[in-house]
Amino acid sequence: MLSGRRTMKLMRVGTAGAERPALLDEDGTTWRDLSGLVPDIDGGLLADPAALERVRAAAEAGDLPVIPSDGVRVGPPLARIGKVVCIGLNYHDHAAETGAEPPAEPVVFLKAADTVVGPYDTVLVPRGSARTDWEVELGVVIGRTARYVADDEDPLAYVAGYTTSHDVSEREFQLERGGTWDKGKNCETFNPLGPWLVTADEVPDPQSLALRLWVNGELRQNGTTGAQIFPVAELVRYVSRFMTLYPGDVINTGTPAGVALGQPEPKPYLRAGDVVEVEVEGLGRQRQRFRDASEVHGG
Amino acid sequence: MLSGRRTMKLMRVGTAGAERPALLDEDGTTWRDLSGLVPDIDGGLLADPAALERVRAAAEAGDLPVIPSDGVRVGPPLARIGKVVCIGLNYHDHAAETGAEPPAEPVVFLKAADTVVGPYDTVLVPRGSARTDWEVELGVVIGRTARYVADDEDPLAYVAGYTTSHDVSEREFQLERGGTWDKGKNCETFNPLGPWLVTADEVPDPQSLALRLWVNGELRQNGTTGAQIFPVAELVRYVSRFMTLYPGDVINTGTPAGVALGQPEPKPYLRAGDVVEVEVEGLGRQRQRFRDASEVHGG
Repeated sequence: MLSGRRTMKLMRVGTAGAERPALLDEDGTTWRDLSGLVPDIDGGLLADPAALERVRAAAEAGDLPVIPSDGVRVGPPLARIGKVVCIGLNYHDHAAETGAEPPAEPVVFLKAADTVVGPYDTVLVPRGSARTDWEVELGVVIGRTARYVADDEDPLAYVAGYTTSHDVSEREFQLERGGTWDKGKNCETFNPLGPWLVTADEVPDPQSLALRLWVNGELRQNGTTGAQIFPVAELVRYVSRFMTLYPGDVINTGTPAGVALGQPEPKPYLRAGDVVEVEVEGLGRQRQRFRDASEVHGG
Repeated sequence: MLSGRRTMKLMRVGTAGAERPALLDEDGTTWRDLSGLVPDIDGGLLADPAALERVRAAAEAGDLPVIPSDGVRVGPPLARIGKVVCIGLNYHDHAAETGAEPPAEPVVFLKAADTVVGPYDTVLVPRGSARTDWEVELGVVIGRTARYVADDEDPLAYVAGYTTSHDVSEREFQLERGGTWDKGKNCETFNPLGPWLVTADEVPDPQSLALRLWVNGELRQNGTTGAQIFPVAELVRYVSRFMTLYPGDVINTGTPAGVALGQPEPKPYLRAGDVVEVEVEGLGRQRQRFRDASEVHGG
């Protein structure tokens, strides 16, 4: 945290599709209503320094109305996400547990934005899935259009903030059904995001964040972004050479060791009823209960 | 064309980001303004039979105002696209020319919607690219949410219409830079779409459409959707088991033989100044001039 400056944890609260923008108070529990100041938390806001400054000033003035939080859902902290760019095998220990060599350059794949759900929403085990897996990741939220970021530029200047991201994955669909990894990464509800979008000034070093994930209370992943093969700055620069990053895009920066795929047989893949908690240091903790898609959508 | 019923070619015309919805008149040249009837051509419209019926009734009444087309840009015929799901190696002759076996099940990858541009817009050869390639494809536009489409359902009931799609590809980025194909498919401007979104009732058989592509006037691809390994109906059903398809999503259904990658050395990859024309029978013809990204965005 930079001293003397009000840092910001942005949120979106309310029913799915009707969330309103909010700010987590410095007490860590009170939600402050931003809907009188800005229409939503999205790429448009993140790309608008004046609007962000209005939010900051109102937060410092301390006169934002409180939103009662009892029973209110927390949505993903970002609306109108353009694309979710994912980085594979970005931790040595995770590459090793999957039997892969550490990549010579970043492995890139995509998740559609429609996979994003709130941090406490139900996640669906797809029909026919026996290998649904977890992945805690540092999510990077883009705030300025990044194309061909130059060697002498600071790639972190394009980052608006950070968020906890759960890159849920179906390993059979991803690895054994032909085609690219995308097939196992884009099932409905497969990207819980949030609870907070923490502005970049509150995260002076994105390479020193602890990442943890628990399944039914048992710690399964326990890493640090310091062990990333390609750090956030390098990822932003690299990706910007292959695709243009726009405000409101998200980069999932990879997962450390400890996923089900890396365990001895029988691998403990997720099933209906399992509860997964996902945390990145300073960015908040998620909690999802898994259900069968067939139960939710008929079947 | 179904007899006795006004079929529809939907368009969006105007500067990028400020297009208005339009209808191509039955004379094949006059643009009719739909902006008094519907806000835009998007998933919301396609999922709303009553709104589509209003458009059709106004077209039949013949009293829609004319939009002067002189010098006016044609945009992609669909706004707020969610995701572009792409099918790889879906024609035997194309699989063969790339040295690949025909896939046992559809190969799926993703393009971000931000790669979509209008059918006559400039396409950018990425910096550092020596292998930018063309691919004419039948684009399928989803009109109803499709998840787990059942064996006894007609998958084509989820299709709102069809459009010409150019799946521009960078082969080195796609195949030789590690990771998935997405790295070579998501460069800026890499998915010209349109000119028309032709409603499904005007395309009684999506498996009998000629596909053609010319580079600098030379015919390079000349195929038919009848040669698809997995036909459109099967693709919709298949994809719906791995990801949910929403109104306004697009499926690029693969390309026939004739791409640069399949030619003898020296392969005729695209360079600044090249002009590519792309046509799917009944869906309109595109024309793009290629330019260097470094020229457009600085060096």
